[in-house]
Order: sequence, then C-alpha cells, then structure tokens
Amino acid sequence: MFKSAVFNLKDAGKDQVQEFLNSFDTVLCDCDGVLWIDNNAIPGSADTMNYFRKIGKQIFFVTNNSTKIRGDFAIKAQQLGFIANEDEILSTSYLVAHYLKSIGFKKKVYIIGSNGIGDELKAVGIRHIGIGPDHVKPDFKSMKSTDLDPEVGAVVVGFDEHISYPKFMKAASYLASDECLFLATNTDERFPKSSSIIVPGTGTLVRAVETCSERKALVLGKPNEYVRKFLESRGLDPARTLMIGDRCNTDIEFGVRCGFQTLLVLTGVTSTKGVEKIRNEKIAPLPDVILPKLGDLLTLVES
Amino acid sequence: MFKSAVFNLKDAGKDQVQEFLNSFDTVLCDCDGVLWIDNNAIPGSADTMNYFRKIGKQIFFVTNNSTKIRGDFAIKAQQLGFIANEDEILSTSYLVAHYLKSIGFKKKVYIIGSNGIGDELKAVGIRHIGIGPDHVKPDFKSMKSTDLDPEVGAVVVGFDEHISYPKFMKAASYLASDECLFLATNTDERFPKSSSIIVPGTGTLVRAVETCSERKALVLGKPNEYVRKFLESRGLDPARTLMIGDRCNTDIEFGVRCGFQTLLVLTGVTSTKGVEKIRNEKIAPLPDVILPKLGDLLTLVES
Repeated sequence: MFKSAVFNLKDAGKDQVQEFLNSFDTVLCDCDGVLWIDNNAIPGSADTMNYFRKIGKQIFFVTNNSTKIRGDFAIKAQQLGFIANEDEILSTSYLVAHYLKSIGFKKKVYIIGSNGIGDELKAVGIRHIGIGPDHVKPDFKSMKSTDLDPEVGAVVVGFDEHISYPKFMKAASYLASDECLFLATNTDERFPKSSSIIVPGTGTLVRAVETCSERKALVLGKPNEYVRKFLESRGLDPARTLMIGDRCNTDIEFGVRCGFQTLLVLTGVTSTKGVEKIRNEKIAPLPDVILPKLGDLLTLVES
Repeated sequence: MFKSAVFNLKDAGKDQVQEFLNSFDTVLCDCDGVLWIDNNAIPGSADTMNYFRKIGKQIFFVTNNSTKIRGDFAIKAQQLGFIANEDEILSTSYLVAHYLKSIGFKKKVYIIGSNGIGDELKAVGIRHIGIGPDHVKPDFKSMKSTDLDPEVGAVVVGFDEHISYPKFMKAASYLASDECLFLATNTDERFPKSSSIIVPGTGTLVRAVETCSERKALVLGKPNEYVRKFLESRGLDPARTLMIGDRCNTDIEFGVRCGFQTLLVLTGVTSTKGVEKIRNEKIAPLPDVILPKLGDLLTLVES
C-alpha cells in the first residue's frame, strides 16, 4: 500500500494509520525542516517523536549538519521538547569520526570545516588541523611545501564559513597523494532559502575540492548509504525502517537507496509544488507517504 | 596527412614541413607552457612565432588567464622577445568584456576575480563590484539583502585568490534571479604542477558557484568555442587555422571542436606519457601534429 505511490496519510482511515504505524520498528528522522527550523520547534513534531518512542519505536536523528557535536544536538532537541539522547544523534561530524576510527586511522586530518568535526575527531583520539581562518599572506604564491604537514593522511570537507584559497590549495596538495583519504560530510548544494540571500551548502565546497584535487570524495551524509551500513552493523532491519524528511533529493533519495519506507513532510525544503515538479521531471524519488507536517500523524492517531 | 593521426613533425621531410606551413593562414597560440613558463621564455618559441609573422601568417595569442589586461599581456610578450600587439591578445578577461558589450549589457557586474577582468570591463564602460577581499564580519549569518547591489545584472567568475564564503553567498544570491547572467572565464581545474603545492584553477571556483547557484556558467575560455565565433565574425577560416597548445583537454580539445588543425608541444602540461594515456583512455582528443617544443619547427625549416 505505501510503496506504490505517494499516499497522503491525511486521507487515511484509522485502520490505515494503524497499519502504517505497525509497518516499521525504527524511525530515522531528519531534523532541520522536519523537527525544527533554526531554533524554533515545528508544532506537533516533538509530541509525535515522543509518541513513537512511547509505542516502542527505536529513534535516530539523522542530520547532514556537521557544525555541532552530538551532545550539542541532543541538548538542542531536549530544549525544544524532544526526548533525545546523544547515542541517537547521527550527525555527519560524528560519522566522519566513527568512520576514521573504524578503519584504524592513526594520522592527522586536515579539516575544511568547523569545530563540530574537530571535536568529534578529538573524542575518538584523532588529531586534526585546519579549523578557522587561513588567508593569503602575503599571497597564495608564497605557499611552500613546508606549509604542508607531513602527518596529514586524510582531508575532510564539511561546512566552513572561513573557506579561502589557501585552504583549497592545502586540501588539493594533500590529496595529490593517493594514500591521503578524502571524506566529505555531505553534498547539499545550499541551505533552505529563508530570504533573498542564498546560503551555499557544504556541497559547494566539496565540488570545489573535488575539482582541484581531481578526485571524488567519500560522502558520509544523506543521500549516501553510509548511515544504513552503520546501523545495520547494530541490527537495523531496512524493511522495518521509516525515513522521515523534508527534502526529496537528500532524505527521500537516502531512504529509497537504503530500502526504507519514506515519509515526506512539507514543513521544509520540498513543497507541494516541488512534489509535482519531481513527479513530472523525475529529478528525485517520490516518497511513499506524505503529510503536511509531522504533527499531523499524532492528530490522526488521536482523532 | 595531418588530420588522421598524431604526426611527429620531427620525422617530417623538408617537403612535408613546407606542406604543413602552407596548410594554414592563421595561428592561434596558447601562451603559458608553449611560449613561456612564468616569466621565462621557452627557447626558440619567440623566433618561431616571429617567423610565422614574417611569412605572412595572422597571429593570435589565446590564453585562459584572466588576471591581466591585454596591454599587459602584450608587454610581457614583447619583453620576452615576441612581436605582439594588444589586438592579437585574446585573454578571457577581454572576451568577457567584449561579450557583455556586444549584447548591449548596461547593468553592473559582480566579479569573483581580479583586476584583469575589472579593468577590461572598465575599458568598455561597464561598471563592476566585488574585486578584493570580502570576509565574514562578524559572520556569514549577518549578511542581509541590503548587502546586495540591485544594479547587478551579471556574475563573472575568474581566478580569485581572495575567494571567501561571502563571495559565494553573493554570487549565488545574484544568480537566484533568472535575469542575472552567469559567465566564467574558464574551467581549468588547476595550474601546471611545479612543486608539491597544487594551485587550484578557476574551474575550482566555477564549479563551486555552479553548485550553490544551481546554474551552469557560460564559459568563454578554451575549450569552449567562443573564440572561434569571435574570430569568424572577423573573417577567420577554421579550415586554414592552426591551434598550438600544451594541454590536450583545453587547447587541443578547443582546436578540435573548432575544426582547426592542432599542434601539441611538450613543454607544458601534457607530456609524451600523457599523450599515451590519452591515446589509451580516450579522455581527451589527440593533436594532429606533435613537436617536443615550438622552436623545433624553425629548426626544421632552417635545416
């Protein structure tokens, strides 16, 4: 029933809502645009997530945001009314640290990114350099091979508001060695548009480093399937998993690739009009189920 | 003879050399890696270019470099022994200015790039903003729509050592309007490798802006065919034109796309080994004719 076409759960009868709730054991939920926007909770989202927990669902918060450590995400969720603990947060900065630790990485990481990545690496005992401003002094031509740290064995690209030409130079120069690993947190082109200012996403920086290094990054965030592999090693059953998100080209694409059931809410990036565009132009997968907002699910249960 | 396979002109007899020289009326020549490297002339290149001129060939210097105005390129060429005048220099900064003037562009240009572009625009009476450092103060979140100039009607991306996150934000925000033009000087991934430091090329910045703007730039430099269109309107006959370069994926690709005869010299990016790799992996077109260095041509003529 839920796999063949986009089903608006608002049109469902009580039995269908119950059938839907019985069809999964694990909920993976995107955060920004589904649970909150900036620092404001989306009405009903916290009650719905807490309800999932109450009826025995396992919950994970899956975010491409690399600027915070898991503990800070958990605190933010709690402050906005969500029951959440650190182990349930799967942020890309944590995934980077976990990945490098899992392969026994012992060298240093050159980070284009912020403290979210640095602190998660530190937490697993991996050294790093690169965070913060690095401008051209006196100009880029003065960079010498002695400005490169021979201990660097990986380049990680995440969101970095201090991006600069020397950072691109260093990343490309480290990556000239085939032995240097190349990871990226995510490839989101831009943040949700909230004004006439477009806020470039991490994908902008990843594509730049891929160009000058002439290499492709291993991307750990959605829509790449790393999170599924991570959770499968902990017993996840993809056939009994629901992915909730607000973007068809990251969240729903991720869910489809992983074999999860997918629920799109319209409180973030993808709008009703966007769904029609995707249906017509086939530029991203469609979700199985749609709801105006996550909180509507609880209303349906309680009605 | 010269179109079917890579012919090493060093193996040619005197008649074949003469046949080659008679097969074109116009010479388009890349600069860096063919005529000079940094500020050092490649031995024999100036004498050969001056010989072309002496026997009546029309000459153009075609460079993807956007950091200088044509007059400065001409002065550099003259200082290194080349007869050259400003009208023969086809640099990407000039092409950008010429293109905008030719379409009657009256608004302002937001430049990610350097004075080469700014001064060429000024020379044709087009206003511009954006050159120089633009860092995050106090941070990128503080950017407001009032930081955007409503008169901007085009974004031009060239080489910019002062690239920063606010520059990406502004470029993407201007490009959110479909009416805003999007031009790029070139898409070279990186500069020729001269040390363990990799120097990212303009393509690195173009790919970044294309990502956050979700648009494709109109690229005026090689291997795009804009230069051919520009010269055809001045009477160029592609069938009687020779393109000389040191890079198969820009110069030779450009020549092949334009229907020119192509000569690769091995004093720059593409090496003998590179030619074999291209032959095996078909990652770029092969030239019609090859020579170790441009100066060898004059030696063959005089031998």
